[in-house]
Amino acid sequence: MQSQLLAEFLGTAALLCAVIGSGIMAERLSAGNMAVALLANTLATVFALYVLIEVLGPLSGAHFNPLVTLVLWSKISLAHDGRAQTAILFIAFQLLGAMAGAWAAHAMFDLSVLQVSSKLRGGWSAAGGFSGWGQWLAEAVATGGLILVVLRAPPHKAPALVACYIGAAYWFTASTSFANPAAVLGRMLTDSFSGIAPASAPGFVMAETVGAAAGVLFSRWLGEPQATADLAA
Amino acid sequence: MQSQLLAEFLGTAALLCAVIGSGIMAERLSAGNMAVALLANTLATVFALYVLIEVLGPLSGAHFNPLVTLVLWSKISLAHDGRAQTAILFIAFQLLGAMAGAWAAHAMFDLSVLQVSSKLRGGWSAAGGFSGWGQWLAEAVATGGLILVVLRAPPHKAPALVACYIGAAYWFTASTSFANPAAVLGRMLTDSFSGIAPASAPGFVMAETVGAAAGVLFSRWLGEPQATADLAA
Amino acid sequence: MQSQLLAEFLGTAALLCAVIGSGIMAERLSAGNMAVALLANTLATVFALYVLIEVLGPLSGAHFNPLVTLVLWSKISLAHDGRAQTAILFIAFQLLGAMAGAWAAHAMFDLSVLQVSSKLRGGWSAAGGFSGWGQWLAEAVATGGLILVVLRAPPHKAPALVACYIGAAYWFTASTSFANPAAVLGRMLTDSFSGIAPASAPGFVMAETVGAAAGVLFSRWLGEPQATADLAA
Amino acid sequence: MQSQLLAEFLGTAALLCAVIGSGIMAERLSAGNMAVALLANTLATVFALYVLIEVLGPLSGAHFNPLVTLVLWSKISLAHDGRAQTAILFIAFQLLGAMAGAWAAHAMFDLSVLQVSSKLRGGWSAAGGFSGWGQWLAEAVATGGLILVVLRAPPHKAPALVACYIGAAYWFTASTSFANPAAVLGRMLTDSFSGIAPASAPGFVMAETVGAAAGVLFSRWLGEPQATADLAA
Repeated sequence: MQSQLLAEFLGTAALLCAVIGSGIMAERLSAGNMAVALLANTLATVFALYVLIEVLGPLSGAHFNPLVTLVLWSKISLAHDGRAQTAILFIAFQLLGAMAGAWAAHAMFDLSVLQVSSKLRGGWSAAGGFSGWGQWLAEAVATGGLILVVLRAPPHKAPALVACYIGAAYWFTASTSFANPAAVLGRMLTDSFSGIAPASAPGFVMAETVGAAAGVLFSRWLGEPQATADLAA
Repeated sequence: MQSQLLAEFLGTAALLCAVIGSGIMAERLSAGNMAVALLANTLATVFALYVLIEVLGPLSGAHFNPLVTLVLWSKISLAHDGRAQTAILFIAFQLLGAMAGAWAAHAMFDLSVLQVSSKLRGGWSAAGGFSGWGQWLAEAVATGGLILVVLRAPPHKAPALVACYIGAAYWFTASTSFANPAAVLGRMLTDSFSGIAPASAPGFVMAETVGAAAGVLFSRWLGEPQATADLAA
Repeated sequence: MQSQLLAEFLGTAALLCAVIGSGIMAERLSAGNMAVALLANTLATVFALYVLIEVLGPLSGAHFNPLVTLVLWSKISLAHDGRAQTAILFIAFQLLGAMAGAWAAHAMFDLSVLQVSSKLRGGWSAAGGFSGWGQWLAEAVATGGLILVVLRAPPHKAPALVACYIGAAYWFTASTSFANPAAVLGRMLTDSFSGIAPASAPGFVMAETVGAAAGVLFSRWLGEPQATADLAA
Repeated sequence: MQSQLLAEFLGTAALLCAVIGSGIMAERLSAGNMAVALLANTLATVFALYVLIEVLGPLSGAHFNPLVTLVLWSKISLAHDGRAQTAILFIAFQLLGAMAGAWAAHAMFDLSVLQVSSKLRGGWSAAGGFSGWGQWLAEAVATGGLILVVLRAPPHKAPALVACYIGAAYWFTASTSFANPAAVLGRMLTDSFSGIAPASAPGFVMAETVGAAAGVLFSRWLGEPQATADLAA
């Protein structure tokens, strides 16, 4: 159990460190061309995610994402017995990892470790008025697709498929695809390229949760998945 | 059958959503550097196509393309029995999916859902005169190559090979390689980076059909392919 | 035999069409940023080369390169019997394919089909003086490395390894790595991004030949390779 | 033994040649956009590293890195017997290879072969004051992650995982991730894009050593790795 929680902590920390660190590097070097910055951010995330899932997957299943943990836990607990405690611990260590990853990125780039993002991405703006529907739909689509990939990918190809999926979703969703409440937490704690303001976070997490549920339903509608990654416990 | 049609619908919708959505994102961020925009569009398409074929291939064969369906159907129906109805339903759901994908991309990016492209790509221009030969040749080459890859790729490598092929063809064909009448339909319905004006569409579909036929002939000339993906039915 | 020669013709034509076509597209779109243009050119070449070797390899071995044919032929003829005729036919169809590929790219992009490059890359310049050593060394290194990869790659990984090798060599060699006399011929016939002036061609082919010989020697020095792709005949 | 040392020499030389050569090419072509230059540098390094580990791994294990050699040697020598001589020879040939690679890159690009970098990356600056903590932390993180990947990757996936890891680390670490004392030596000898001033080198090597030790500890904490690449001898 201990090594599983360490794997979830380390993996989520490394993922957020890669997302945030590469965003900082890309913004510094790209001279204002945000497409080049997002290309670099995409490549770094795809490479990092692929490596992390391959290397840590045998230990914990490499969720790094509370919604992935909840979906896999719900499928298994319905069949056998409840293991709510495992799921809760997984999620706790993912959230701790996300925070540690953001802070590690800041430390490496000589920035103040503790930051809060000021980048509003949908929600009620100070000027009044609401502008989040597109961003929320994007997060729901991004997360629904991720859950479909997680539930239906052949296990030995899952690392590459999840990484490639996120690489595509960075570009085809209007939100650049967080698809992960732990990522939302980590990104709240950085005022850089990949940040999200706390005021926009609840809407994102809500949209992700709805999207994850839709992903489960679509997967059921497509027929029983061939194989489901086990919730390591 | 139901899950196969759902797979064709979902897959074609996701493909067009990825193509059009990443085009919108890329155009917004690239500050007018169209090469950077097309690079991002290419990466997102390659990643998405690879994931979709791997995940949905076991259900429907992951055609997402009326010409692929027709080519595979013609090969099988000649050998065994006609299953024209399956092919027609596949194509209908691909076309519906392409429309849904374009609309989903617009909704995510807070654009009006219903659009029509104004981007002429060859054909008879308003100023009179015809300028489509290069674009048409490009579409024929793009589709012929795609059919060759589909007919001759070892089945377990087909997802990566089809995705990489399209990634190359985005750059080496003058049309950026649609190679798919369903993609033409979806792209007609967006007035963004990856659109094509309805006036240019018939020529593209015609060129694609000629190219697909040429692909079948070249494959026969090379000797019997090792394996042909089944038309799931 | 016929299908093997067709495979060498088609494969070399498609390779040159991809190299030259993506160069034209990249130059048009990149607004003068040559690094972005070469990135696009690199990706298109890597994707195309990988697909071509996977799809046509089972037919002809997918040489697409006279020096690869000569190296493999020399290894086999020394062991068994001479098959000089096969090697000569392979090379002839490679050269024809390279020409056809350049012309197809021009036709797709509405350029005059027949062109000659004016891009000097080392050699004796009009102003007098010689400036080819770096370029020649680069071509020798590029070709030597390619031969090492061809001779030593595990056969089922050779397509990915050759494609990745060329992708790296586009950037780390000063010549952007042709490493292939058929590619030199095709590139002579285009006055675009990826061209090479006829005056510079002989030096390149000479350097490539020296590099190929060095690659054979280094491979022998490393000990007998595990496996050698067969010269299909 | 001879072919193992040749493999370590050739591989480290080719790696440094790829890193430095692609840096020179990228800087020349990128018109001052450093993000584009680092993207090109990243792709070339990832492709080259993947090919080198696949092709030379069967001969020597493809360390190309004194810290990888020391970590693998320490694990094996504790279990069986000391083979300090092998480790020392490996490291010597890696360092010679790194120098040769830098010089080869310069020769190809018509630069003076012997150079020394003037690019300070952390350390005591001439103006007084110290600014290395972020860079040092970055190198420690980069090397610790590399050792974790080396110790825990399934052997047949190690080439792709190591290459992808370095590709991510180029972006998410503030130092662009050298993670290799031989790379530090090679980069000291070039006054181009990828160089590092000798004054900054000792801090980097120290940080890498600390990071490697941390990687070993984290791997132990995660439980015994499944498999460890052998120190070929």
